[in-house]
Order: sequence, then structure tokens, then C-alpha cells
Amino acid sequence: MKKIHLLLILLSVFTEAFTQDKVPAVTMGNVTLQFEITPDGVPGYSVSYAGKPVIKPSQLGFVLSGNDAFNKGFKITGINTKAVDENWRPVWGEVSSIRNNYKQLTVHLQQEGGRMLDIVFRVFADGVGFRYEFPKQPGLKYFIVTDELTEFTMAGDHKTFWIPGDYDSNEYKYSTSKISQINNIKVVTDATDIAVRVAPDKYAVQTPLMMKSADGLYINIHEAALINYSSMQLHTDTALYKFTSSLVPDAVGNKAYLHAPFNTPWRTIIVSNKAVDVLASKIILNLNEPSAIANTEWIKPMKFVGVWWEMQTGKGTWSYATSVDDINADGSLKPSGAHSANTANVKRYIDFASANGIGGVLVEGWNTGWEDWFGNWKENVFDFVTPYPDFDVAELNHYAASKGVKMIMHNETSGSATNYERQLDTAFKFMNQYGYPAVKTGYVGRIIPRGEHHDGQWMANHYLRVIQKAAERHVSVDAHEPMRPTGLHRTYPNFMASEAGRGNEYNAFSNGNPPEHETILPFTRLMGGPMDYTPGIFKLKGYAPGLPDRQVYTTLAKQLALYVTLYTPLQMVADLPENYALHMDAFKFIKDVPVDWEDTRIIEAEPGDYLTIARKGKGTNDWFIGAITDENARASTIPLDFLPKGQTYKATIYADAEGTSYKDKPEKYVIKQYAVKSGTKLRVKLGQGGGAAISLTPVTKDELKWLIKYK
Amino acid sequence: MKKIHLLLILLSVFTEAFTQDKVPAVTMGNVTLQFEITPDGVPGYSVSYAGKPVIKPSQLGFVLSGNDAFNKGFKITGINTKAVDENWRPVWGEVSSIRNNYKQLTVHLQQEGGRMLDIVFRVFADGVGFRYEFPKQPGLKYFIVTDELTEFTMAGDHKTFWIPGDYDSNEYKYSTSKISQINNIKVVTDATDIAVRVAPDKYAVQTPLMMKSADGLYINIHEAALINYSSMQLHTDTALYKFTSSLVPDAVGNKAYLHAPFNTPWRTIIVSNKAVDVLASKIILNLNEPSAIANTEWIKPMKFVGVWWEMQTGKGTWSYATSVDDINADGSLKPSGAHSANTANVKRYIDFASANGIGGVLVEGWNTGWEDWFGNWKENVFDFVTPYPDFDVAELNHYAASKGVKMIMHNETSGSATNYERQLDTAFKFMNQYGYPAVKTGYVGRIIPRGEHHDGQWMANHYLRVIQKAAERHVSVDAHEPMRPTGLHRTYPNFMASEAGRGNEYNAFSNGNPPEHETILPFTRLMGGPMDYTPGIFKLKGYAPGLPDRQVYTTLAKQLALYVTLYTPLQMVADLPENYALHMDAFKFIKDVPVDWEDTRIIEAEPGDYLTIARKGKGTNDWFIGAITDENARASTIPLDFLPKGQTYKATIYADAEGTSYKDKPEKYVIKQYAVKSGTKLRVKLGQGGGAAISLTPVTKDELKWLIKYK
Repeated sequence: MKKIHLLLILLSVFTEAFTQDKVPAVTMGNVTLQFEITPDGVPGYSVSYAGKPVIKPSQLGFVLSGNDAFNKGFKITGINTKAVDENWRPVWGEVSSIRNNYKQLTVHLQQEGGRMLDIVFRVFADGVGFRYEFPKQPGLKYFIVTDELTEFTMAGDHKTFWIPGDYDSNEYKYSTSKISQINNIKVVTDATDIAVRVAPDKYAVQTPLMMKSADGLYINIHEAALINYSSMQLHTDTALYKFTSSLVPDAVGNKAYLHAPFNTPWRTIIVSNKAVDVLASKIILNLNEPSAIANTEWIKPMKFVGVWWEMQTGKGTWSYATSVDDINADGSLKPSGAHSANTANVKRYIDFASANGIGGVLVEGWNTGWEDWFGNWKENVFDFVTPYPDFDVAELNHYAASKGVKMIMHNETSGSATNYERQLDTAFKFMNQYGYPAVKTGYVGRIIPRGEHHDGQWMANHYLRVIQKAAERHVSVDAHEPMRPTGLHRTYPNFMASEAGRGNEYNAFSNGNPPEHETILPFTRLMGGPMDYTPGIFKLKGYAPGLPDRQVYTTLAKQLALYVTLYTPLQMVADLPENYALHMDAFKFIKDVPVDWEDTRIIEAEPGDYLTIARKGKGTNDWFIGAITDENARASTIPLDFLPKGQTYKATIYADAEGTSYKDKPEKYVIKQYAVKSGTKLRVKLGQGGGAAISLTPVTKDELKWLIKYK
Repeated sequence: MKKIHLLLILLSVFTEAFTQDKVPAVTMGNVTLQFEITPDGVPGYSVSYAGKPVIKPSQLGFVLSGNDAFNKGFKITGINTKAVDENWRPVWGEVSSIRNNYKQLTVHLQQEGGRMLDIVFRVFADGVGFRYEFPKQPGLKYFIVTDELTEFTMAGDHKTFWIPGDYDSNEYKYSTSKISQINNIKVVTDATDIAVRVAPDKYAVQTPLMMKSADGLYINIHEAALINYSSMQLHTDTALYKFTSSLVPDAVGNKAYLHAPFNTPWRTIIVSNKAVDVLASKIILNLNEPSAIANTEWIKPMKFVGVWWEMQTGKGTWSYATSVDDINADGSLKPSGAHSANTANVKRYIDFASANGIGGVLVEGWNTGWEDWFGNWKENVFDFVTPYPDFDVAELNHYAASKGVKMIMHNETSGSATNYERQLDTAFKFMNQYGYPAVKTGYVGRIIPRGEHHDGQWMANHYLRVIQKAAERHVSVDAHEPMRPTGLHRTYPNFMASEAGRGNEYNAFSNGNPPEHETILPFTRLMGGPMDYTPGIFKLKGYAPGLPDRQVYTTLAKQLALYVTLYTPLQMVADLPENYALHMDAFKFIKDVPVDWEDTRIIEAEPGDYLTIARKGKGTNDWFIGAITDENARASTIPLDFLPKGQTYKATIYADAEGTSYKDKPEKYVIKQYAVKSGTKLRVKLGQGGGAAISLTPVTKDELKWLIKYK
């Protein structure tokens, strides 16, 4: 990332002896932050938007180990303020340039006894970020956080879109309820399709938490720059509509081991009276540090196909033999014949990718160990360098290279992070040896070190160690089953994608995702960073052998639209080549759609209902639009205001065919082309669970001869 | 190790349908083992010695996770027996050839429901070993041990020599009490000199546990070949004189994660009516597997000096700066001037070693991180490759090589095993690069992964991983603060020594070790393997600046004797060169004494009272004797029966001077030489806390001219 413009206005930088209990409010646009401290010295804050309360007075602080209160008895010893207005360029992303414009308030606190704590607020026009900073000080060097007491007291019984606060999984369907109705017991109990569920607090929900108030505010709570700390989940006080930070504990119940000086992650509150502003917010990215990687030229966004959906749907297997006990006289495994990651099959995917401009091929199940990998809390599962006998790693990487395609590595850890760490050097050297530019990691299973959780501090450090090691080796990372992202891809742009949510795969091995799912994800999971959702399923029913009722709860056109609405720079093209072969006209949209964008406009959005986004490809004049809806059919009007005036574009509209819905004929679509201009308002009809995908390219002279002008 | 002789007599190998509940007893010499099974199908056993009960009927079995009883409902489906009589040669050790002579009984058990368990007993003339074997079977594949139920029901209220069953430390003083009086609360509470103590069961004691019965039996309980399992501690039923296996739990309370087929460690019961037989027993070594290392020529026993005692006593420091905050303007540490591991000081040790035929020099505190290494449960403490600015690693290894001395590496982990594992490759490559043939590892502090313990299964695997990695790199290991050894040095002869007990160092930083301590260690801690006790302190008082009362509770002569009585192939010469310089006549014994032996004779022994051992140097005709006593003075008569008939020897006797004791003039000694023969009975007087060291070399003609014949 390069900082292209810096306008830093130091409004006032001072540390004064501060005797009043009232610190001046800080306002940016409609957003006002007020810091407060009680007579007992408990720090707190409140946030309002255009005069409406967003966060009512809420307390701040910690309990440290030994029941040591670090949330009261504070006095303000000074404040600093400053203002920043700068622009920076991400290596890849939804826009090519990001403005970072905020006012900062730092409150210096000191406890009786001398211990110090700073609380730093950054107030943006679309929300607030704040974090705790523990200065270097004699009285607080190494310390253990027993509890973080950060409160978010909401102003009403808002509508919320939540998943349980589970220490090990983000892969739940979303529940929509009032704050007062939050209770995750039934959700957790029923989620038998999730392998590992640990959700001891029935009132805990995960962040990003999306809310809508009765008076029309859209509010999102999450965190930014989670480094060397536990994930923040939210404990709900259903009577007071109050959320309190609930950090994921370690094996012995502690929340974080810290060493001053230390800054916690930022707690973020994004707020607007327009839902589209929440999606457009760059607060979380702006609160992360600039790239720690100097040379980022090797980091390449791309689409990829993969030997994966055939295993998810049961057509093939990850494993080479039926069971670990299915062996020949010499002890070697007996091939079952169903192993998908075989050289011939992988070459088929390479050929398909090459023919269609898809940059990568991901192969899961290539390395030994899959007969016996899951569910036993087994430490030494995979070695990450030993292929099955039918997978010729050298030949395949050579073949892929000859076809202009890159192979993507797969390292499943089975949750055994210790085993992976012992072999990181070996694993990444292997990737370098064979030219793999990216790795998909996996953490399916209970974590080892035993007692640790996917979302705790130890694993936060683990995921980052993997990303850092990968960066040293010029490998990009797509992490599956990690903690949900917090914008760290600004600092580590090789951390290109992660799962940490309920992906399209649930349509393969469970009862799937409801039609509203993809309209909620951008407001929740994706707030922190790109998601490897794996869109692009064209065969929407009948793909799971022996399970005729299994289906994807979208139309085919909606699958296309997801390439615009669910952003990631490593984007899967998830279905099988033979399923695409039947719809190559629709597949053209997937071929054409970029994975790196110059600009993005959120046209319309309502969490749980619908979403329309337009994006301009980086380095091109082409725009792409994705529009999706939930279980309700919808007529969407899309004003093409963003097109440059005076330039006629060819709009190619991939829409649900008449009568198409996720229930009926979901694979029916129509493709139409028109000449459009900046003033045009496109009208598209989305079936139930449907969508529309639109590409907009400047017309050629020849096209002008035959294109009909859109009316 | 080479197997030099194999005499394998298969008495009977059969698997028969076994319908009786009584399995024939197995007897070797005085030892008889009886297997039994109750009408409820609970397996059990008893052991007797010359008709005296040693282990009264005691139950066997497990509880598996889910409160799954795997200790009852068994039927015997068959038995196998065999007998073995073979000899093998250890790579190094107390003797050059070891006889392994036992009768084996395997009892095949099957539970209602079909699950199988084998219990294998090996009966030796000096005791019994048994283990559980989980055969490969459909009904038991991966499983978790919640509790091992192995009982050792003693036949009386024996005198015991015990330390608490602590999950993290073996560094206690020994308590001597009746079984009925075992209670570790006060011992644990008072042991403030031990950094990490976790002993939740007040009735738990550590093994090896030494006992003496009222009817004159010496009984020792321990385990052999502890691999991929937790340490066995013993819970005491003080009313029934019964010990039950108490496995050290992991972070979530489980005892072991197993995968059939699996064999547990051997549970060992050594018994004799002579204390010396316990010390001479090779049961634990014999129950370990032969060397897993094919080429062992690079494994070299040696003595070593070290920049260590000066830090232990407070004369110098491990750290380079006084504190991590003591830094210069450029952020570099300000040297305190007290750093012992500086190039000039280390050269002094190299010079001393070279001049006196000492093979190695250990340097602790050479690498950065010591300002801030302990007590904070900090994960990333050391990197194992970055020397302090005043330690020139290349120059020192070059200098040592030029003097014929080897440098010994030091890797302190601070208990952060995860951090060490991540850097093992790097650390061992560094040792290879600079020619270090051995590493002293350290685990001072609470373990990371947090919630794990020094003595649990995860750490058992960790210690072995380090040993295996070291073997690949041709490095020998001296592990400090590990779990206590179980004879694994037979299988991994590069695992040359470990601490896992209360070493001489406690005389430096605490109130030290009582005079009886070294008479108990061989019956307890050393039963499992060599101990890096670090003997050889010559300055026995006044060595700790500012602490005039601090002292070593032995005489100087006893320090010499420890080189014979406390065996290890990596033996420290622990005091400072300047302290040796004042007693170079006594130091000659340390120069002369070997660290690898052809033969060993335990002359006399009583745990807690006294011990006299004679050993013959490997590849020489020289014998060395060490005699030590507890807080009581003692006259010892040592018959030199082991000398070859007809050969006159020169005996050099290093003895306590008249009136010398650990309290008065402990550094006074006399050295006398005589001509002796096989029939000679040497009489030596040991002061309180005293000892005597004797070397025996075949006389030269010239010596015969002047030596006085011993009378």
C-alpha cells in the first residue's frame, strides 16, 4: 500500500493537567463521541448520530488477574486531540484509494497507586473506533486480562442479525431478533452441521453484530486490528439492551497475556441512517496499520477453480482409500477409486481454468492422511509435503505452468496448530519448490494446544504467524475456520481471504443457507475482510448423489451476482467444469468479472432483504453490478449515475428468467444486452432467492450498430 | 547399542481358550507374580519375594472418557508365556554389558462387547514390570484415558522416601515417613525455593518411590519407557497402604490421548532383601527398547566445566544488562558489567578445561533475553541463536577447538515449549554450524501450551521430539526441568542426562540439600537414568556474596565421591577454576575419574544413610570408589574383592581429615596412597556429611618401590 496523499491537521496536541470530569465532545459530521468519568473514577463514553443516541453511557475498563479492578479509581491526567485526513491505496480491494479522515481524542487516566491507562477514540463521519493503550510504566509490566468490561449500551431494543458467540465457529445461520430476544441455546443445539461448537454463554453473540433501530439507524459493532489478543464476543443484557465485551478464554480461563506497552484491538461502532453507508465504511481498514510488507508486487488477486465441490457433494473423496485399515499386504493404502485429487482429474481442472482465464486451481485431498484426519483430537495428522501416490505434484505444477495457471496449495491442520507450526518451514519451502503462490489453510476440529479455542489469543497469534511466514515466502493465505477477520489484510495484504463464516459449502453437506443469507453476510462477516464464500454453483439441485432434496437456495443468476456482492480478491469458481459447460453463456460473466476494483458504489441495501452493488474494474472502464434478494421476489431499479457522462455502455444483463425462483427452475436465466448511459435507470426483476448480474463495457462502434437503447 | 549375545528360550508360546480364572504364577528366583481376575472380571495381580508379600492383590485397568469403565467385565481369552535370557551392550553406562533375563506372561482379556486388552508381565529375579497393551481392534481405535486404575497394595506400613506428586517439579527434598504418614501439604507449602509447584493431591507422591519394609525388603516402584503418555504419580491410601496410579492431567483434565495399537509405559516393581540389589537392578533399562539410533559413534561421554556456578551463587549474572529497561539512546542494552558469559571469561574456562582434560565447557546466559525471561508465562522468550554483544560465538568455538575442548550449548525455554518447537530447526542448525556436540535444555517456568504440565503427555512428546531432532543433528541432550527419566536413554543414547530432581544448585540459591540427600537420590531419582546433579563444589562456604550462612552440606571429599555414586555420562565439574586452583591435589580425582564404566559394584547401601560404590573405567584396568554418608559420621570397610587376583594396585584415598564434617572445616581432606590387592579391606572414616573417594590403578614398578602396603 502506498500513501498517496497526507493532509494531517494537528488541531491541538497537548497534555494538560486536567481537573474537570467533563472532556469536550468530539464530532465528525453526524457522529458525536462523548467521554465521561464517574465520581468513582470509572471511565465511560457515549455516541450519538445526528442527535440520536447510538451508544448510551457505557463503561470501560478491565479486571486483571487476581480480581484486580482496572476499571475504577481513575483520574484524568490529560487529554490529547488531533485530526487526520489522508488517502492511501490498498494493494487490492473494493476501491483503489481510501480516505482516512478522523478526529482523535486520547484520554490519559491514572489510578490511585499510579497505574496508567490511555483510551484513544477516533471519530469518523460514519462511526467511532476506540482502543485501550497500556503505556510503558513501572506498575504494570506483564499482566493478565481476566475480563474486558467494555460496554455498548444500545438506545433501544433494536433488530439484530446475530450468530452465537461460539469460541470455535462462525459457521451459523443468522438469526434475526430483537436484542431482548437474543438467546442462542436452540441455535447452538440445532446446528449439528457444525463440527465443533463451544458456546457456554447463551446470551453471547459474535461480532460483527448488525443492528437496525426503530428510528432508522443502522449500527454495526465489531473490532479492528485484532493482534495478540482474544476475539471480542458480546454478552447481551437483554433487559438493558446492553452488550459487554466477552473475550474468548484460553485453556486456563484467562483472556489475554499482555506486556506493556500494549494497544488492544480497536472496538468499532459504525453508524448511519443509510444501510449502504455501513457497507461502504472504511473505518475498520483505516484502524489497521499500513502494510508491514514492503514489496507487495507478488500478491496477485485471482479467481480459481478447485477439486473441491465434487468432494463436498459426495461425488469424490479427499481420501485415497476408503479407510486407514484398507491396506495391501505391503502396508500401502488400497485406492478406493473415488479420490478426486488424482493427476488426470486435476489436469481436467487445469485445462478448464486455462481455457477460461481462471488463474488458479486449488486441490484439496492431495496429501496423505485424509483417511483418518478428523474428530479424534489427534495431534500429528498431516505432514503437508507427502502426496498420495496418484497425485504427481511436480508434473501437475509443470503442466499448470505450461498452461498459464497457478496451483493453489491446501494445508488442512485438523485444528492441530502445534503440528502445523512444527512444520511451517517445511510446508512453505515445499510451496516455493513447486511454485504455489497461495495456500488455503484449514482448521476443522478442536484446537491443539488442547483447551485453546479458534478465537482465543493463542490462535490469533498462530494465524498471524502463518501469515507472516507466508509473506516471507511470498505466499498468499486463504484461511478456513480461522477467527473472523478484523481488517488485518491492510497490514498483511497477503492475507487475501478467509472463511470464518457459513459458506456456500453448507449447501453441499447440510440443509444449506437460506436465501437471505447472502444479504446479511456483507453487513456482518464481511465487515472485517474478504470471505472465501465459494460462489458460482450452476447445478443448483441434484448435485448430491443419493440426496435428491439437497439444493442451493438461490437462482443461477444470483450465483453470478455474488461475484460482485461478496468481495474477495481470491474468488472461487466453485462448480464442476461439466456443470459450467452447460451454461457457457452465463459463465461468461464469471470469466469477465474482476477480483480487484477501482471503485465501488453500494446502490441499495437492507440487511436480510436485498443488496445491489456496482463496481469498476481496476485499470479498466468496465463496471459490474450484482443485485440479490432474499426469499422475496423483488423489482430493483438501478440508476447508472456512476457511468461517465457522454459514454455509451453495453449492458449485458444476466437475470432470472420469468417464473424462476430458488424453488422453481432456479437454473433458468435470460441474458439481454442494451445500450445504456449515465442517466439510464435499469429495472431488473429478481425471483424469490434470485439475483441479477450486469456487466457494463464501453460500446464499440460495431456494437452501436445493433444494440437496442435501454428504455 | 549392540546386542552381543542372545539366548532366547521359548518356554511356551500359545494362545489357548482360557476358561479358568486362575493363571499359573510366574517365578524367577525369589520373585513370584500371580495374575488374578475377580468374578466381576476385574483384572489384578500380586507379587511376592521369597514367600513374603510385596504387592498384595491389586487391581488393574482404566476409566476411559465418558466414564467408560475399562477395568471390569473382562474374561481371559488366552495367555502367552515366554522366557528371555540375553545380553546387550549399552553405548555408555555403569556397566558395559547388561543381562536381560525374564519370564513373560501375557494375559489376553476381552470385555463384554468385545473390546480387548492385553496385560503383559515380565518377571525378573529382582522384580516385575508390567504394561497394558491395547491391540488393534474395531471397538477401540482413538480413545482418551480419564484415569489409570493400577494399584500397588503394599504389605505393610513401610518406611518411604518420597517427594510430593507435583505436576511440574521433582526438585523437592526427600521426606522419610511411614506410608500412613504421607501428606505433602506442608512440604509443598514450605518449598518456596521451587519456582513452579502444582500438587493438588496431598496424598500424591512421585516415583521412583523407595520403600523399606519392617521385614527387611527394599521395594522400588517406578515406570519404564514413558512414551506418548503421562507420568505416573502415586495416590496414597494411607489406611490401606495402597498406591494408585495418578496420571498427570492435560489442560482439559484428560490423562492421555491414545490410538490403538498402543502399549503403555511399563510399571516397575524392584524388590530385594538387599538394598544394593535395587541400585544394581537393570529392570528399567531392560524394559526399554534397544537403540533407535543406528550410528551412535558421535555420542561421547564427557565431563564439563561451566560458566554457571558463578551465576548461581550471585557472583555473576545470566543477563547482560541489569534490566530490560536499562537501555542506551539507540535502544541497545547497557551492559551491567556482571555478565558471566563474556568472551574473556569463557576463554578462562576453556583454558582451565584444556589444561585438565575436561572435555566440555557449558555457557549459560550467552543468548539475548535473560533480562526478562522468567515468571511471566511469556511465550516468545528466547530465539536460541542471538548472542549477547560480548559473546563471540564463532571465536569461542574456534578457540575451544584449538584447545581440544567442545562447547556445550544452552537452550533455556522458560517453559515455553511451543516457542522452542517453532525454532528447533534453527536452534539445532546453529549448534551444527558452530560445532556444539551437546545441548543443555531448560524448562524453568509454567509450561506453554498453557494448562499443560511438565509431567503430562504433551510434554512427554515434546521432550522426545527434542531428543529425536537432536539425534538427527548428532547432538546430545542434557534436559533440565523435564519429567523424571524412565530409562529412555537405552533407546535414545543421545539423551545423556537430565535434571528432574533437586541438584547441587539448591545449595547456591536456597537453604540447600541435607547431608542425606545424595544417599537417597540413587534409590529414587537415579533409578530412571543419569542425573546432571553438578557435583564438585570445593568452596563449601562463603561462596555466595552477602550470604555468609549459605553452605554446601557435604565435605569436599564427599563432593569427590559423588563422581562415583551419582552416575551420568555428561558430568559437570561445577565449581569455579579459581576454587579448584587452591586444591589441585584433590582435583586430580576429578581429572582422573571416568564417565563411562566397564563394571560397577554396589558395595554397601542404605537409603537415607550411606552408599559405597566401586566402578571400573571402560577400556582401562582402573577402579574408582565413592563412599558417602548422611549427617552421621561413619566408618566404612571396603573389601577390594573385585580387583583381579595377583595384581597389586595403587590406592589413592581422598578422605575427610580428622574432625572434618559438613559443619566444621568441610574443605579439609587428606590424600594417602597405599599398595592394595584383591584381599585388602580398606577402612575409611567419613565425617558427618562426609565421604571418601578412592582411585585404584595397577602399580608401576617404580611405585612398588615406595608404596606402603595397606594393612
